[in-house]
Amino acid sequence: MISKKMQPLMANNSAIRTMFEEGDIMKKKYGEENVYDFSLGNPNVPAPPEVKQAILDILEEERSQVLHGYMSNAGFEDVREAVALHMNKTQGTEFSARNIIMTAGAAGGINVALKTIMDPGEEVIIFKPYFLEYNWYVNNFDGKVVQAETDPCFQPDLKDLENKINKKTRVLLLNSPNNPTGAIYSEETIKKIAGILIKKQKELGRTLFILADEPYRELVYDGNEVPCIMNFYPNTIVSYSYSKTLSLPGERIGYLVIPDELEESSLVIDTAANANRIAGFVNAPSLQQKIVKKCVSARADVAYYDRNRKALYDLITDCGFQCVKPQGAFYLFAKSPVSDEKEFCKTAKKYNIIMVPGSSFASPGYVRLAYCVSYETILASMDAFKKLAAEYK
Amino acid sequence: MISKKMQPLMANNSAIRTMFEEGDIMKKKYGEENVYDFSLGNPNVPAPPEVKQAILDILEEERSQVLHGYMSNAGFEDVREAVALHMNKTQGTEFSARNIIMTAGAAGGINVALKTIMDPGEEVIIFKPYFLEYNWYVNNFDGKVVQAETDPCFQPDLKDLENKINKKTRVLLLNSPNNPTGAIYSEETIKKIAGILIKKQKELGRTLFILADEPYRELVYDGNEVPCIMNFYPNTIVSYSYSKTLSLPGERIGYLVIPDELEESSLVIDTAANANRIAGFVNAPSLQQKIVKKCVSARADVAYYDRNRKALYDLITDCGFQCVKPQGAFYLFAKSPVSDEKEFCKTAKKYNIIMVPGSSFASPGYVRLAYCVSYETILASMDAFKKLAAEYK
Repeated sequence: MISKKMQPLMANNSAIRTMFEEGDIMKKKYGEENVYDFSLGNPNVPAPPEVKQAILDILEEERSQVLHGYMSNAGFEDVREAVALHMNKTQGTEFSARNIIMTAGAAGGINVALKTIMDPGEEVIIFKPYFLEYNWYVNNFDGKVVQAETDPCFQPDLKDLENKINKKTRVLLLNSPNNPTGAIYSEETIKKIAGILIKKQKELGRTLFILADEPYRELVYDGNEVPCIMNFYPNTIVSYSYSKTLSLPGERIGYLVIPDELEESSLVIDTAANANRIAGFVNAPSLQQKIVKKCVSARADVAYYDRNRKALYDLITDCGFQCVKPQGAFYLFAKSPVSDEKEFCKTAKKYNIIMVPGSSFASPGYVRLAYCVSYETILASMDAFKKLAAEYK
Repeated sequence: MISKKMQPLMANNSAIRTMFEEGDIMKKKYGEENVYDFSLGNPNVPAPPEVKQAILDILEEERSQVLHGYMSNAGFEDVREAVALHMNKTQGTEFSARNIIMTAGAAGGINVALKTIMDPGEEVIIFKPYFLEYNWYVNNFDGKVVQAETDPCFQPDLKDLENKINKKTRVLLLNSPNNPTGAIYSEETIKKIAGILIKKQKELGRTLFILADEPYRELVYDGNEVPCIMNFYPNTIVSYSYSKTLSLPGERIGYLVIPDELEESSLVIDTAANANRIAGFVNAPSLQQKIVKKCVSARADVAYYDRNRKALYDLITDCGFQCVKPQGAFYLFAKSPVSDEKEFCKTAKKYNIIMVPGSSFASPGYVRLAYCVSYETILASMDAFKKLAAEYK
């Protein structure tokens, strides 16, 4: 009854979502405050106050027919210009509105980018661990995911990357700050990756793209910086989302950046705008676009996440679990004390702790804890974690 | 540089959009009030006042984390329940929230439905004339469009439909009220279509779906009624959009209805919700969903469109052009006085009239005029149309 392509997905439905639903059931049973749900990247931090004020102002300023109407498939010109200027100010780039395509969040943006540049049978290299949903995005366009290794600190294995590039490779999908590890790739690492791609492009006589998924770009701690990849490798498309920065994940608003330096940039930009239309997005939601224009410098409360990060990291390591301290995003990827991390997650549920198994990120033996929860949840979970740890002593 | 699948689209870019952009250039040159732009279905009627009030109320009532947060991929439960109840009240159905999946407008909904039920190589039958964008939606999933004929009043040729159903057919895509003709298919016609499909399903031992694209369901005139197809044919999926009814085309908000009576309904519903996620929509924009809940009975000003319809129809026919009077939607599909209607459109531009050639709807020899413009535009265009007519006397 359903399409062949959807059958494997339905047979093996998203583990994260299943966790989410199990969490809801547990909360109804035990009370919300007694369940420690670290399963989903749904920000507990509210949108910054600028968002509400922006909506009120927009309702006064804009004519309904413009505010809620069709615009060009790439988005409102004034919004794209505001985004470009903000990037230029913060990342030292020289973009204009033309380089920006407003999208339905990063999931929309990545799909539009892949539809634009990838043919069936071509390969997308992704460093492990990674958000497995990427597999479905690549599958939407009949591409193939090739997994590349990282070191114990979740930094790219550059030798493995080089080995995995071949005449079918089209895209290197990078996600830094990373979900699920919180790792950030330094400028030095990005320069090395760029070097490999430039060399391989020449060797293979074939364009290789970096597709950079950067929804966590501004969620960084300890003075870490996220390098602007486009400054080091011209064939880069960046996908950004306001889901985390403005706490608007349900609104589906973000953008793609396609620099002029990218090969045949003008054709790629026009094609991406059309791909946005025919994939069924048509355009990014119009009111949300106008909000972005007014809130281009606004930020969710990063200090709140940082406090959570420290509290959860201390709690987890004090309990004896191993974990690399995250540099960005709002996830912590801890080593499971037993090789079967699904078993570990199951045991954790006895203590009302919900975590996502690392196999949902192509990395068994680990668990992901999303700390975009309330600070109180982390404090309250201490006893539960201690009891869990005691089982593995 | 771009994907093979996007190449034919880019080689032959959307004529409607080209018109739209040419129109903008002409407006800058001659002044907005001197260009009679009938090219695009972008409503000139503002959203009903309930929409603005709903936004103000929602901002007071809902917590930011809920209002702008993730929800289940099918949409907020309370929103889907409100939609279901409204349908039950107006169409005599018995839906619950479970039957409704909130989507990014009808374009999003149709793509999600096709991703859910169609395999590569399968056929989608569509009556001419039709919105050619459907071709790209079907192509997204490697299906094939098969065109079926209509009579001079743009009503389905049932004999031709029957002949075109074969063992590759999966979907009959219906669009009533129709873009570009304004034709409505009567209950009698729908019953006959259902009869053919039921017979053919049995003969071929194969499920055949109706996919009903109904964004114009409430835009009907002269007391016409749009029958509820699901009441006559159980394997029907309806795609609805608030783009026209609430004048929110840029916001991308609508829904799919999948009735319990559809074969393996529960699997198809779950699959569609997941298809919504992995296609990159994730979920329909959250604030817009909440607006729908509060505005489920609100309507844009249909009387305004009706006045436009009458004025433009009278004007066109008084000038000697032939046209079937539209029963719904906000388009008028007039016969070109010469067989090459692109030539006719080009001549019209001399008088600052912008129309879309029928070949953009698989029906050369006609032109489409969208009358979702201001009433004043129609009145002001009278002299231009008279001069245009004089060229063809």
